[in-house]
Amino acid sequence: MTFKEKLAALRGMMKQQHIDAYIIPSSDPHISEYLPDHYRCIAWASGFTGSAGTLAITQEFAGLWTDSRYFVQAADQLAGSGYELMKLKVQTAPEFADWLAQTLPKNAVVAFDGKLASVLLAQAIEERLVPRGIAVKSAIDLLTPLWHDRPALPTSPAYLIYETITGATTASKLQRLRKEMERSGIGAHFISSLDDVAWLFNIRGSDVACNPVALAFALITDTTAILFIDQGKLTDKDKTSLQEAGVTVEDYAEAENALAHLDTGLVLLIDPKRTCFDFYNRIPDEVTVLEKTNPTTLFKAVKNNVEVTHTRHTMVKDGVALTRFFKWLEETLGNEPITEISLAEKLRGFRAELEGFVGESFDTIAGYRAHGALPHYKATPESNSALLPEGLLLVDSGGQYHTGTTDITRVVSLGNASEAEKTDYTLVLKGMIEGSTAVFPKGTRGYQLDAITRKPLWDHLRNYGHGTGHGVGFFLNVHEGPHTFNSAAVDVPVEPGMITSIEPGLYREGEYGIRIENLVLSVDHQDTSFGPFMAFETLTLCYIDTSLIDTSLLDAVHIAWLNTYHAMVYDKLAPHLEAVDQRWLKEKTQAIG
Amino acid sequence: MTFKEKLAALRGMMKQQHIDAYIIPSSDPHISEYLPDHYRCIAWASGFTGSAGTLAITQEFAGLWTDSRYFVQAADQLAGSGYELMKLKVQTAPEFADWLAQTLPKNAVVAFDGKLASVLLAQAIEERLVPRGIAVKSAIDLLTPLWHDRPALPTSPAYLIYETITGATTASKLQRLRKEMERSGIGAHFISSLDDVAWLFNIRGSDVACNPVALAFALITDTTAILFIDQGKLTDKDKTSLQEAGVTVEDYAEAENALAHLDTGLVLLIDPKRTCFDFYNRIPDEVTVLEKTNPTTLFKAVKNNVEVTHTRHTMVKDGVALTRFFKWLEETLGNEPITEISLAEKLRGFRAELEGFVGESFDTIAGYRAHGALPHYKATPESNSALLPEGLLLVDSGGQYHTGTTDITRVVSLGNASEAEKTDYTLVLKGMIEGSTAVFPKGTRGYQLDAITRKPLWDHLRNYGHGTGHGVGFFLNVHEGPHTFNSAAVDVPVEPGMITSIEPGLYREGEYGIRIENLVLSVDHQDTSFGPFMAFETLTLCYIDTSLIDTSLLDAVHIAWLNTYHAMVYDKLAPHLEAVDQRWLKEKTQAIG
Repeated sequence: MTFKEKLAALRGMMKQQHIDAYIIPSSDPHISEYLPDHYRCIAWASGFTGSAGTLAITQEFAGLWTDSRYFVQAADQLAGSGYELMKLKVQTAPEFADWLAQTLPKNAVVAFDGKLASVLLAQAIEERLVPRGIAVKSAIDLLTPLWHDRPALPTSPAYLIYETITGATTASKLQRLRKEMERSGIGAHFISSLDDVAWLFNIRGSDVACNPVALAFALITDTTAILFIDQGKLTDKDKTSLQEAGVTVEDYAEAENALAHLDTGLVLLIDPKRTCFDFYNRIPDEVTVLEKTNPTTLFKAVKNNVEVTHTRHTMVKDGVALTRFFKWLEETLGNEPITEISLAEKLRGFRAELEGFVGESFDTIAGYRAHGALPHYKATPESNSALLPEGLLLVDSGGQYHTGTTDITRVVSLGNASEAEKTDYTLVLKGMIEGSTAVFPKGTRGYQLDAITRKPLWDHLRNYGHGTGHGVGFFLNVHEGPHTFNSAAVDVPVEPGMITSIEPGLYREGEYGIRIENLVLSVDHQDTSFGPFMAFETLTLCYIDTSLIDTSLLDAVHIAWLNTYHAMVYDKLAPHLEAVDQRWLKEKTQAIG
Repeated sequence: MTFKEKLAALRGMMKQQHIDAYIIPSSDPHISEYLPDHYRCIAWASGFTGSAGTLAITQEFAGLWTDSRYFVQAADQLAGSGYELMKLKVQTAPEFADWLAQTLPKNAVVAFDGKLASVLLAQAIEERLVPRGIAVKSAIDLLTPLWHDRPALPTSPAYLIYETITGATTASKLQRLRKEMERSGIGAHFISSLDDVAWLFNIRGSDVACNPVALAFALITDTTAILFIDQGKLTDKDKTSLQEAGVTVEDYAEAENALAHLDTGLVLLIDPKRTCFDFYNRIPDEVTVLEKTNPTTLFKAVKNNVEVTHTRHTMVKDGVALTRFFKWLEETLGNEPITEISLAEKLRGFRAELEGFVGESFDTIAGYRAHGALPHYKATPESNSALLPEGLLLVDSGGQYHTGTTDITRVVSLGNASEAEKTDYTLVLKGMIEGSTAVFPKGTRGYQLDAITRKPLWDHLRNYGHGTGHGVGFFLNVHEGPHTFNSAAVDVPVEPGMITSIEPGLYREGEYGIRIENLVLSVDHQDTSFGPFMAFETLTLCYIDTSLIDTSLLDAVHIAWLNTYHAMVYDKLAPHLEAVDQRWLKEKTQAIG
């Protein structure tokens, strides 16, 4: 079926079932960002492959609401699909619901599949529609009947990892969680988010591309801990270890029934942002539901010393692979053909040579020239550009290692950089340095650090449409909460031990894109009469192309930071490099004046 | 009765009524910040006179929870009262409720008077206590029986102001409000906040010190607009004008009954932050309650051109008064005795000479030396300091004029300023300039501008415990929402036409305090390929003491801004000053290098 035919079929079913508008969110029952193929509904229906978006369909109109990261890609992919691109003003805001509220008449019926929407999203939809007399049906799946070749749920094996890596046993994590539950008077806690389950049970898998997680739910009480997972995924040895940690393993499909049959009178904690509406609606009325962020989400975000030490070593590995890659790129360009796709494969190869490499933490974004202006660009055989000895190349990539997760963006000049490119590059770098060198009182939120990072760009009337940074997991998802560095009102203080990216950017559609990204660890800095202050330790180890810097736009402090950073990069990577690579890196990390 | 005796009496009544903990919030049924004497319950019970705080009382413990602005003052005033000072980590957070949740056993009973708590606060209390099996009673008034000489509700006259001043008639404001209600499917809207009522009906009064408002509620539907107010406060002429604008006037006491008898099936909008819990609980179950910020709160925050023009003129008036005041101070110091109280009276006098002056917009904060370290200090006959020709003097004051509201803080050196004082002063000034000169994308929130203003202080491991700025009314409350410049996650974008203070500070307990405050108007700045940008126009017109500046801590841009500002201050004020005052101001506004 073409996308147009699928849309027609959907509208036919909507007519039959008296549905005036149908919503297709981008999610799954775990409210994942990266989806198993079984749940890639938007790609199936519209052809849009971005990781964030919402489809809303009426008889007269069909649209995809997505944010600025995807404007250009979506315009491309939606061509001829019957869907129009609706540009989000505010990333992740349910603007499609506002549009429905304005467009639909009283007594209209809006439907969606509650398994694909978080409690928060569903409540936001109802809030906007119900007062206007519009009915909302949240258990309508129109896709399954039409999606004949829909992929099955993944069955890849899962495995336990150990205290020497995680720094904490499952038993101790369960104890910590129960202490927190007791403190807040919570009797039971249901966890849907895959990375929370993976962290709590020290379990990893490969059910989802790039995220080393296994499809699973968990239900914790003061005495029991149930892991709902396809039992075929676990070895007997791991099942035994789980048992010894006080964990009962039950079938994946049992999770929703367990929720539906909770003891009445219980106080149940669920995370409205990380639990699907369909499950939420199965909770018995006699259960008191407390809606709060999963405690494990915060526990997980604050890395322990073992995780931090492993991450520091992992950064050396990743830096070695990146050094070899950029050296290869420089020496090969002009001699052998290189394309966006081939260089991404090459980079993967350099990482794969390293011990403990599991896979990429996300699909490499290798954007040459205008493609760099698509913040989440992924080259396709059709789009694939061949590199020439000129213009800017943006490479955003990361690795999953048994000892940590990496995420780094660099922009390099392939030749003849323009003054405009140098100005933009230097201002982005200045923002990245301002964020990385910030000292701030304990309790500071990500949105304050977002502003400090953007300021150098704002001063020159420039800006970027994505966030400044995101939490990064430990051998887990490359995007994790609860904290984030962006302009949204996410009220989570930065805590010592959190790992976050700082990645300001600047995008000129049709010309080039710039983004410079390091991962930083938040650390205690100093106690003062004004309270304790914190700072960042930069973890990422890779040179920053100085040929693109216009030093007249930087202050002495920025240049000093860059020179110190480059000295550290060389000192930490050199011992692991061959002489020729050392010489090359020495060049790249020369101090600038 | 002494405070100790009152506390004992309260505990006695708690015992009788089986109440384990009693909460006394600082508010009234309108959730006002400045309270009529009738509702100054915390001052009556504990002696603490600050504008923000909460008392929580058990048989074993009695505490006042307040924020850093009041730590020193509260410690003073609570001495011997039986109440302990509990320092808030997060301004306005219900940390007393967390404390109760941790301290009280299951089945304990917590009570408060729902007329003194917003819906939001009451819900926050219940959220923390109910899951722990603690009962919450929200209609318990223990004070009235004990408070024999409790002041009656104020009966001062109210009056209407006209379109030439407000730029919009009541009829047009009602029309605008109804359009917004219709857009969101709202059938009725109840307004409790006094400044919202004052704005909507173009009415002013003097029931509350410093805020030109009258005690009133309002109920708006698509066809009716009821103003609940003590009818004796209005002239027949004004009653007629209101009638002509489609407004029905009913008795103040009728408001709660009107709420209790709303038609079932209605969708009612109330502001959970600006409506008291007691009224909320009177709403019939069959009414659908939508909890959102009052539309008028945002309408009011965005000043129209008439209001802005009046405000600009008012700033000239206020600047003239301030110039005369600071000149008087400089010339009188050493010749006549001056105290914190006498100089505040003198300043009031200079303002009172000006046409259209109604009163102060808040009690002048004149803090000499160590008293300057109390951000909300008000001199008392006991504390009143005599000024000497040395040390720092902080003066934070403002006026209510028929044509606008002002709020300004300056710090001047009375002689022999130390290097430490100059460093602190210059860093605060740098922050104020950074905030005032910020250019930022449309959609930027106050918490981002807060961070930009604090950055120069953070860079030197300094900070202040209060917000960076607050909305300011037009001949209305000196503190108004919905926007605010502070670190809290208040998700309100800055809009063109908003008037906000920028007032970074720095406080060294026992030594001195510094705060420099201007009011700024947000304006459209420039459209760019990255979207529209905004900026600020500084409204306040008063010199900034340059004798305290250490220019080595400023960049060229900061010095340039200061010199340009000083030139503007002189040009706008000079025409209204006598020659001697002109010459003096010329001196004070000399450009620095």
